[in-house]
Amino acid sequence: MATAADADAMRRAIELAARGLGSTSPNPVVGCVITDASGAVVGEGFHQRAGGPHAEVHALEAAGERARGGTAYVSLEPCNHTGRTGPCAQALITAGVIRVFYAVGDPNPQATGGADTLRAAGVRTERGLLADEAEAVNTAWLTSVRLGRPHVTWKYAATLDGRTAAEDGTSRWITSAEARADVHRLRAESDAVVVGSGTARTDDPHLAVRGIEGSTQPLRVAVDTNATAVKPGARILDDAAPTLIAVAEDANAAHLPGAAVLRLPRTATGLDIPALLAALHARGVRSVLLEGGPTLAGAFVAAGAVDKVVGYLAPALLGAGPTALAGAGISTITEALRLDITETVRIGPDLRITATPLAKER
Amino acid sequence: MATAADADAMRRAIELAARGLGSTSPNPVVGCVITDASGAVVGEGFHQRAGGPHAEVHALEAAGERARGGTAYVSLEPCNHTGRTGPCAQALITAGVIRVFYAVGDPNPQATGGADTLRAAGVRTERGLLADEAEAVNTAWLTSVRLGRPHVTWKYAATLDGRTAAEDGTSRWITSAEARADVHRLRAESDAVVVGSGTARTDDPHLAVRGIEGSTQPLRVAVDTNATAVKPGARILDDAAPTLIAVAEDANAAHLPGAAVLRLPRTATGLDIPALLAALHARGVRSVLLEGGPTLAGAFVAAGAVDKVVGYLAPALLGAGPTALAGAGISTITEALRLDITETVRIGPDLRITATPLAKER
Ligand SMILES: NC(=O)c1ccc[n+]([C@@H]2O[C@H](COP(=O)([O-])OP(=O)(O)OC[C@H]3O[C@@H](n4cnc5c(N)ncnc54)[C@H](OP(=O)(O)O)[C@@H]3O)[C@@H](O)[C@H]2O)c1
Ligand SMILES: NC(=O)c1ccc[n+]([C@@H]2O[C@H](COP(=O)([O-])OP(=O)(O)OC[C@H]3O[C@@H](n4cnc5c(N)ncnc54)[C@H](OP(=O)(O)O)[C@@H]3O)[C@@H](O)[C@H]2O)c1
Repeated sequence: MATAADADAMRRAIELAARGLGSTSPNPVVGCVITDASGAVVGEGFHQRAGGPHAEVHALEAAGERARGGTAYVSLEPCNHTGRTGPCAQALITAGVIRVFYAVGDPNPQATGGADTLRAAGVRTERGLLADEAEAVNTAWLTSVRLGRPHVTWKYAATLDGRTAAEDGTSRWITSAEARADVHRLRAESDAVVVGSGTARTDDPHLAVRGIEGSTQPLRVAVDTNATAVKPGARILDDAAPTLIAVAEDANAAHLPGAAVLRLPRTATGLDIPALLAALHARGVRSVLLEGGPTLAGAFVAAGAVDKVVGYLAPALLGAGPTALAGAGISTITEALRLDITETVRIGPDLRITATPLAKER
Repeated sequence: MATAADADAMRRAIELAARGLGSTSPNPVVGCVITDASGAVVGEGFHQRAGGPHAEVHALEAAGERARGGTAYVSLEPCNHTGRTGPCAQALITAGVIRVFYAVGDPNPQATGGADTLRAAGVRTERGLLADEAEAVNTAWLTSVRLGRPHVTWKYAATLDGRTAAEDGTSRWITSAEARADVHRLRAESDAVVVGSGTARTDDPHLAVRGIEGSTQPLRVAVDTNATAVKPGARILDDAAPTLIAVAEDANAAHLPGAAVLRLPRTATGLDIPALLAALHARGVRSVLLEGGPTLAGAFVAAGAVDKVVGYLAPALLGAGPTALAGAGISTITEALRLDITETVRIGPDLRITATPLAKER
């Protein structure tokens, strides 16, 4: 049975895992804590980037000989396969760990089986300690394994009455500096940041992460069907982060010589969203932050490709101006995309609301 | 100096005061707690309705002789005037109370001076204990004294993306049963409930309080410039609560023989909002719950006549349909009505956001 001390160690492992968000794809985030035979923490580690050592390897290295007779707490089932780094299950056995707690089983068919290997070697193995918390930190990756496409978070900023700009188009500082800083944190935790051609044209956004030390830059993606919105000199084309311009198969992108261009099929409203997500998935992208605008967000909603909504609501009223979401293909109330609000936090003067779509069955 | 026991007694007095919300206008709500010489609570009371006894009278009656040598805790300065009931300052002196804590001074020139009378009679008098809480419970009444018009709370229900109905007009149960029950509580605490002719025409709303025992019914008001929206047989015309139909001076209201009709000047968009509020104030209305729709709410915002906003946000997305607020006369971002969010609470699956406009100076 797990004790309070076991739970504390696992909680710490999950905290460590979270540090890898945004830089481990296509791998999951994983954290590991090792205690010695007396229960004292002797090693900690987390998976920092794909191709780098796994969490267990970092933690075992820190623990050294003190791991012998000790316990390992891992947020995800230790891997069994010899990929770019050796199998972690074997490393734990070799180090003399006699007990392993892991929070969540590995759904990846290539990596699974680590727990069996541990048990076969006589290591006591327990699954499920703080499973909910560990799943939450790996939501994006688990979703991508389940659906075969990246997890999508749609972020928007609006007034209390749902406007993203005033009637004359002005929108500067609808939300606060604190809310804007928070968006940089969301970007840093994402593998890719996506905007539509309307936003690219109107705002010339930069989309790179600023102000977060040591963060990995996301892939910046503009969805620009006819290759007319992103022009040479656009801020998105600088070298602060990698960039991908998604255009139609027949679009003329000759004016974007340096840029990486992704060619996709057309649909009635623009580019094919599932094809876009499949192409990003193939490039190792497991989490997408969709930063709008309203039309592209509507297309994602219509495609059933929004897994999480993060709304920054500014305490202001406008009564006119563009709305946060448009063209989602919903015409009657029973078709509304119903969500579950999972968190509400004040960010400076603003309110950040996080919600996830309810399963269709409900 | 006030002790923790003094604060507890005052907190209770404020709680008692709140029970009068919606039924004391044009008077404020007031609560009173009396303790005996040893500090034990011996009497409680609150002002229940205009024309009825004041809070102090109820509490002194309950305390009887035990008030002698004791302390009174009153949420508002005891009155000094002989209105429909005798002056409370004198009643406290006569009962032998030797100390009076009151939270907020009475801004009403007719009632003021009670503290002076108490002090002149040798009663120790302290002002300001839990003043913020006591002001909060009397916000509507204090606003009406300050501005000479009723306090206005605009209530709306919308999806996270600010829609009040779907594209085809369907809106049934955007928000939950819990949120709808909460609106009845808001109505019960208000002197009047106001809707525009658009809402009267589309929804045929009833607007009376249901499901709250012992509550006073608000005055139901429809703002129907041309007397064309409220038709004979409209639910608002039943006898569940009093009703007032506001129409233009030249409107033909001959088809509404039984109904109380209020005649007001016209403006470019309908009836004159300040004139409406002045007329309601003259009838003793101190608090108005504005229940929409978006157009009338926009007119109130444009007239600077919204003092509090209560939004029920349903965790759903629509991407099309009417918005919560329209025609507020705001065309650029610097003119946005900036608010301060004072409370955020879950009401069933929905979110209730309460906010108040920032002072223009800020
Ligand atoms: N407050 C916020 O959170 C926020 C965030 C972002 C933007 N904005 C504001 O939103 C405004 C721009 O919004 P917008 O709605 O005009 O543009 P948008 O959503 O950024 O881009 C829409 C465009 O994307 C292209 N597109 C490509 N594939 C599509 C598909 N499958 N479905 C739909 N569109 C597709 C279409 O143009 P083509 O097919 O011609 O390429 C479409 O017109 C700007 O004013 C910006 O400031 C606000
Ligand atoms: N979700 C919610 O919280 C909520 C609440 C209420 C209503 N609703 C929905 O809102 C819809 C109705 O909204 P609406 O905007 O059409 O109608 P509304 O706001 O209820 O009424 C607007 C009408 O009020 C009259 N009016 C009188 N004086 C006015 C003034 N000074 N300024 C502006 N208008 C004035 C005008 O018509 P006349 O001058 O011709 O009389 C105007 O067209 C309905 O579908 C209803 O279901 C939603």
